[in-house]
Amino acid sequence: MDVQKKGWFSEVHDLWPGITLSLEINNVLYKRRSKYQDILVVETKAHGKMLVLDGVIQCTERDEFSYQESIAFLPLCSHPNPENVLIIGGGDGGVAREVAKHPGVKRITQVEIDEYVLEAARLHLPFMSIGLSDPKVDLQVGDGFQYMKNHTNEFDVIITDSCDPVGPATCLFEESYFRLMRTALKPGGIICSQSGTAWANLDHVSQTLSNCRSMFPVASYCIVSVPTYPTGQIGFVLGSLNTSTDFKEPVQKFSEKELDDMKIRYYSADVHRAAFVLPRFVAKELLIDNKILS
Amino acid sequence: MDVQKKGWFSEVHDLWPGITLSLEINNVLYKRRSKYQDILVVETKAHGKMLVLDGVIQCTERDEFSYQESIAFLPLCSHPNPENVLIIGGGDGGVAREVAKHPGVKRITQVEIDEYVLEAARLHLPFMSIGLSDPKVDLQVGDGFQYMKNHTNEFDVIITDSCDPVGPATCLFEESYFRLMRTALKPGGIICSQSGTAWANLDHVSQTLSNCRSMFPVASYCIVSVPTYPTGQIGFVLGSLNTSTDFKEPVQKFSEKELDDMKIRYYSADVHRAAFVLPRFVAKELLIDNKILS
Repeated sequence: MDVQKKGWFSEVHDLWPGITLSLEINNVLYKRRSKYQDILVVETKAHGKMLVLDGVIQCTERDEFSYQESIAFLPLCSHPNPENVLIIGGGDGGVAREVAKHPGVKRITQVEIDEYVLEAARLHLPFMSIGLSDPKVDLQVGDGFQYMKNHTNEFDVIITDSCDPVGPATCLFEESYFRLMRTALKPGGIICSQSGTAWANLDHVSQTLSNCRSMFPVASYCIVSVPTYPTGQIGFVLGSLNTSTDFKEPVQKFSEKELDDMKIRYYSADVHRAAFVLPRFVAKELLIDNKILS
Repeated sequence: MDVQKKGWFSEVHDLWPGITLSLEINNVLYKRRSKYQDILVVETKAHGKMLVLDGVIQCTERDEFSYQESIAFLPLCSHPNPENVLIIGGGDGGVAREVAKHPGVKRITQVEIDEYVLEAARLHLPFMSIGLSDPKVDLQVGDGFQYMKNHTNEFDVIITDSCDPVGPATCLFEESYFRLMRTALKPGGIICSQSGTAWANLDHVSQTLSNCRSMFPVASYCIVSVPTYPTGQIGFVLGSLNTSTDFKEPVQKFSEKELDDMKIRYYSADVHRAAFVLPRFVAKELLIDNKILS
């Protein structure tokens, strides 16, 4: 039954014990131990180029668009006027690429802690790193946690594109981080954070949503399909300082032509709404009213 | 990078080249080559018991409910009075278990071709095979294709719970099969067939939907989350002889209490609606209007 052979990358992690996704590799393009993590870029056989941090798949060329479009447009389209956006993490550039597409966004500040993730992306992942050089983007190498301590009342939307809640990224899921984001936001501001998968780690999701709820009057969780993430999904926690925000109903809806022009392949207003429809067992655990569309 | 070890089952298949899901195995419970296929039941380390046919994961104890509930309730709740149901395949019993829960269903005929799948399920997968002994179920061992040739104008709903469109199940995705189902249905009848995953095999999905469209005046495709299926999803093609059927709006909606009483963990009316919201790249390929909920 053991058909794994040399030449495959396998993602093994304590967050999803007893199950692992493997991709066949043509060659290794980049491999470096930075101050923060192991960085690996490989060319896969069937999924294009792939970025791996500390052994965990961050994105593949074939399916990264569903993640990047969603983490960008779910919060942006929930805000009536998202002019000034802060991205924490996201060093590959994919999130900046999508945020920059939104016509209402005027300025994007991005704070990535690891300069070698930026290097790896610029060298080998141009389809994402193109976002880093967008004229709207002010890219800074530093600690997002520290950055926000020095910035208050400044951003309309804060997007956290982080690793999973183990190791160096743990602090990005805690209550203190949601407090910092709250003070860095302007009135009515909105946050969106990568928050793991409900099928594998419902306890983590529940804790992160609870931390968000303790700091934001409106908070929710939604799910998006990303085949090369564990369980084939990723979830996002969203919070708003505007008590009239209804995350499941976007305030900005683009036409099909506008979406085509922006080269959007996954997101639409309907995909936005559907992302907040949770399976019963998830809705019950998170104490979210399941009757979203009725 | 090759961390796969002995004691893991890896699902390798030409339908999803270059990528494979592996589950750690505690022990093998059943292993037999039948006339039709290799049948394997194993106890996994983290996903309970797992049924594998010809090397392809059919279901794990941990996540099978989303598949079974969906393939049952999506068509049943699209029909105003689904009294008489035919299940083709589904030898593990999980689909029958869910169909039998629907209070409007009076009679379930199930035709499974492989008696040893039934044996494996009865011996080792009681949480699913319980469906086979439901008093509503008339279980027959035989070829569903042949069965339908002898039955016309008989069923309200036909559910096809088959393997993937390679090998012996290929015929269950072809136009001739949809023609047979059309004649086996009563007026206004509805069909639902397992139809693969859009991320990995959009060409197959498109062909199956096209075959359905050629025989049914109303046809659609929807997507459901199943973490241990390739890309973490499975899709269903649905067809209706009732030209007023709108698959994205269930005609039967159960209350939260009714769903609780039926021990439904995934499906709800909102999950039903959201299942028909397709990512843009899928909707475009399948020529389905993306504006479903607007």
